[in-house]
Amino acid sequence: MLNAATLDDAARLLAELQEKGLTLATAESCTGGLIAAALTAIAGSSATMLGGFVTYSNAMKAEVLGVPPGLIVAMGAVSEPVARAMAEGALRRSGAELAVACTGVAGPGGGSAAKPVGLVHIAAARRGGATLHMAPVFPGDRAAVRAATVDAAIAMLRRLA
Amino acid sequence: MLNAATLDDAARLLAELQEKGLTLATAESCTGGLIAAALTAIAGSSATMLGGFVTYSNAMKAEVLGVPPGLIVAMGAVSEPVARAMAEGALRRSGAELAVACTGVAGPGGGSAAKPVGLVHIAAARRGGATLHMAPVFPGDRAAVRAATVDAAIAMLRRLA
Repeated sequence: MLNAATLDDAARLLAELQEKGLTLATAESCTGGLIAAALTAIAGSSATMLGGFVTYSNAMKAEVLGVPPGLIVAMGAVSEPVARAMAEGALRRSGAELAVACTGVAGPGGGSAAKPVGLVHIAAARRGGATLHMAPVFPGDRAAVRAATVDAAIAMLRRLA
Repeated sequence: MLNAATLDDAARLLAELQEKGLTLATAESCTGGLIAAALTAIAGSSATMLGGFVTYSNAMKAEVLGVPPGLIVAMGAVSEPVARAMAEGALRRSGAELAVACTGVAGPGGGSAAKPVGLVHIAAARRGGATLHMAPVFPGDRAAVRAATVDAAIAMLRRLA
């Protein structure tokens, strides 16, 4: 599900974080654990990667990460504020210095005119710092959208490190 | 990281659970999100899969899943009681009817005579029912141990479904 280039990027990110003594957590919806799986594929990742949350249901986004349920109702689970709240919730719940979150429409179903298949909101938060956000629309099928999200999440974390 | 046979097994499990109206959560240490990633690779998995927890650090095993810290100190993170406590914690924290958990030595480092590389404790819990456990020693490298753990976790869940 992940190619060698993704694993290389994961290894580079982990090396950068370890050098700076920063720890990391993930909060994933549409990727369903694939970001964490990519990071933990790297031997020695436990020095940096504390863990992560796969919050596929809205209830888990609220209960596990503390995303306000009203925000999910008002904005939809696939939205910038929910992605930001997931990343910031992952920081709080994990104790890590950095967290990345994503929520999107991996397809093949679930798309709409406003939120097409491939739309993914990605947010990366650093404790005491700003939270970055992007909302690309990735081409391809479910596997391609998920793989592209992993790459974008790792790239965003490298900008924050 | 996952082959077609694994994804076929994941799809079969999800179909069986959906037919019975059962929901599912995961709690992963050595696989680091790969079980959840395999399950959510299947389109429509959100009907069944509520989410999961990647508890790589001992602190996250305790704080996120409620594994007693004293149990981790006494038995080690890679142990039957910790695997069982992770699965049962995932049930409580997710609200799912079924949960699977794993904790093991994926390698290449971290092995010992008592707990060699490839040893993985896997537990699957059903709400109100028994918790199954197994502790295979898988051959091969880090990727092989993680992939074999995903297959064994899915097979164990199918026995509980």
